[in-house]
Amino acid sequence: MARIYIEDLSHQVGEVINIHGWLYHKRSGGKIRFLVVRDGTGILQCVMAKGATPDEAFNSFDSLTQESSLIVTGKIRKDDRAPGGYEMELTNLQIIQIAKDYPITPKEHGVDFLMDHRHLWLRSLRQHAILRIRHQIIKSIREFFDDRSFVLLDAPIFTPAACEGTSTLFETDYFDLGKAYLTQSGQLYGEAGALALGKVYVFGPTFRAEKSKTRRHLTEFWMVEPEVAFNDLNDNMELAEEFLEYIVSSVLKQRAEELKALERNTKFLESVKKPLPRVSYDEAVEILRKKGVNFEYGTDFGGTDETIISEQFDRPVIVHRYPAKIKAFYMKRDPQNPDLALAMDVIAPEGYGEIIGGSQREDDLDTLLQRIREHNLPQSAFEWYLDLRRYGTVPHAGFGLGVERTVSWICGLDHVRETIPFPRMIYRLTP
Amino acid sequence: MARIYIEDLSHQVGEVINIHGWLYHKRSGGKIRFLVVRDGTGILQCVMAKGATPDEAFNSFDSLTQESSLIVTGKIRKDDRAPGGYEMELTNLQIIQIAKDYPITPKEHGVDFLMDHRHLWLRSLRQHAILRIRHQIIKSIREFFDDRSFVLLDAPIFTPAACEGTSTLFETDYFDLGKAYLTQSGQLYGEAGALALGKVYVFGPTFRAEKSKTRRHLTEFWMVEPEVAFNDLNDNMELAEEFLEYIVSSVLKQRAEELKALERNTKFLESVKKPLPRVSYDEAVEILRKKGVNFEYGTDFGGTDETIISEQFDRPVIVHRYPAKIKAFYMKRDPQNPDLALAMDVIAPEGYGEIIGGSQREDDLDTLLQRIREHNLPQSAFEWYLDLRRYGTVPHAGFGLGVERTVSWICGLDHVRETIPFPRMIYRLTP
Repeated sequence: MARIYIEDLSHQVGEVINIHGWLYHKRSGGKIRFLVVRDGTGILQCVMAKGATPDEAFNSFDSLTQESSLIVTGKIRKDDRAPGGYEMELTNLQIIQIAKDYPITPKEHGVDFLMDHRHLWLRSLRQHAILRIRHQIIKSIREFFDDRSFVLLDAPIFTPAACEGTSTLFETDYFDLGKAYLTQSGQLYGEAGALALGKVYVFGPTFRAEKSKTRRHLTEFWMVEPEVAFNDLNDNMELAEEFLEYIVSSVLKQRAEELKALERNTKFLESVKKPLPRVSYDEAVEILRKKGVNFEYGTDFGGTDETIISEQFDRPVIVHRYPAKIKAFYMKRDPQNPDLALAMDVIAPEGYGEIIGGSQREDDLDTLLQRIREHNLPQSAFEWYLDLRRYGTVPHAGFGLGVERTVSWICGLDHVRETIPFPRMIYRLTP
Repeated sequence: MARIYIEDLSHQVGEVINIHGWLYHKRSGGKIRFLVVRDGTGILQCVMAKGATPDEAFNSFDSLTQESSLIVTGKIRKDDRAPGGYEMELTNLQIIQIAKDYPITPKEHGVDFLMDHRHLWLRSLRQHAILRIRHQIIKSIREFFDDRSFVLLDAPIFTPAACEGTSTLFETDYFDLGKAYLTQSGQLYGEAGALALGKVYVFGPTFRAEKSKTRRHLTEFWMVEPEVAFNDLNDNMELAEEFLEYIVSSVLKQRAEELKALERNTKFLESVKKPLPRVSYDEAVEILRKKGVNFEYGTDFGGTDETIISEQFDRPVIVHRYPAKIKAFYMKRDPQNPDLALAMDVIAPEGYGEIIGGSQREDDLDTLLQRIREHNLPQSAFEWYLDLRRYGTVPHAGFGLGVERTVSWICGLDHVRETIPFPRMIYRLTP
């Protein structure tokens, strides 16, 4: 008999089938016994009735524990009251293993306990919903760029130079070549890719050795970074808003059930349509001051500032043209005001903070050389990057979107730790 | 005027458009000048004729150098003789930058020189073809699993314990938690995922600090690792052959032009159809001996052995049931012969060697505990992994496919270094 998955039951009504899975929970009432079985793709209620069900199966009910592995056989019928919409009239039950003392019980557990048992915690329906939404987000990201003929450019994880100081970099010995540093961003490589292939996206894990213990920080997180030759800041903002609309609408369409399981209020998601509101840094500072924040012009926004700014809008807001001195050396200056960088951040609603950061890049060789000197960076480490300005330089722009913050926002989670199967944080390296 | 890409020219015949790009090469004959422009999506021949083309554009021909950045304007016409099938009657030429002394010229360069200029080498049509095939392979891998309801499970890069010795592991300091090691495989995490979600795939970069200088080795490479609950060795082999057929046929269909550009003989690719031939380790040893190889039973196959075995078949060959002592501790033993592991490798044709390695996993707690002791592994580091056998264990199986070796094979390359944008090898950490 072919193995059937619970998610495919709509084709199996009236058929006698096997489901391979685990006991999620059970209950009994009078002469009826219910086994709720999960197989990773859904849950199925299996019904046993004293007299109708073979005695051997019926009598094993008492021995079954949560997460015991089993194969259930029976006829499938549609039942709108049942979880998932189908029910099995159980006729055979094959127990593979009785799980003894499964650690995660329906009672409340502390976060540390659950994180220590992350390999088992992943079996909960809540974690299934989050991981399926994560999967959909990643799929939508790739679809978006693939459909627009971007070429995937996997940037290296090992990078040679600690360009912007080593304090937030993880390092490792690299044979006879000294130290290698784990990438914090594939952007510089993405720029080389854009000038070769027109439009590319880098998508991989990135690493920050920041000693941050906030609910937004992981030491290891995934980032997608598109980069497009001949794009300016305005093109970049348009790409970002089209991109966000695509991702969010894909999740709303494909993962409605999972959003419901997470009790996500989708009001703020449904409004993610382009155009997104755009405010300059100067205008954002005005917003803060009107709200009574004593904000010092020229500094960066903190988490609370971002929340206040985002609360003025019903969808993510793009903040552009930041003071150059708080932004990276490679950002192009605004020709209208050289104190400003042609940077843009997208701030998510509901206090989820910055999910996208990007800019138009400095494309003039001499200006970029000057920035490298101003930032006291070692020019030799950037010679290859400078080559991109020596040989056929063009305007170009790109941005980075952090996957885990996006998952956190779309799922409406309190903490980024549930957005990835095995999160890594300053105090967490296991399991 | 909207920006048009060369790959979309079929919709632009008869239209006057702009192409943003770089000079790939140029030539002149009589009163005609040809500029071949690349924009990352293709190349376009632009024609200028003395008298017909505005003098300013025509006269700038001499100043244009390889990789100069420019915007060309003109009417598009179909011309089957032209590379790409279209031609532009150039009416305007805007030079953005004249590239001086572009290092990579049409003459032959040594590999070290090209690798030092990898950021520019990526601009060659050959590298475009390889990277587009790489992209297609990765896209097909994800499509294959997504279409079959596998859930993407991003395994951690940082792992806590150096389980199988540290000699081939990269390590980094991890705050107050001691050392973290860069993952060599996400499999153990994939197993946790399979028991939670039924069928999952891990897909990310993996790392090996091997001091190997062969044409098959990178220190940083991408691997996809599906894992399926309730699959046995046979299911695993079926999944692997269906998977390989899917990937190869997608590339043949979607990237025929790129394969042609690489002058790839596709004979061995067209035959990649299931079922793949299957031979046991014992049968493979027989093949070697018949071919005159003095092979010691019980040892692992070397590169030359793999080539000889693969030459007996017109498509990839699956070798299964290896001696347990040369395989990993987590592999299940063959109930028919406990000296054998329920392992399988897929060996590519044409000397490309092993591209897939996998097995059914040991699912019995006591047996796995015994293996851990036999291999002198620290049990404490595996407690979470043992939990998967404590709480609802089930038969399960999976495999790993190395992306770069697959790209190398499908493209027909001599060396794995061209299969990834910025390769990392024992002697190569830049650019």
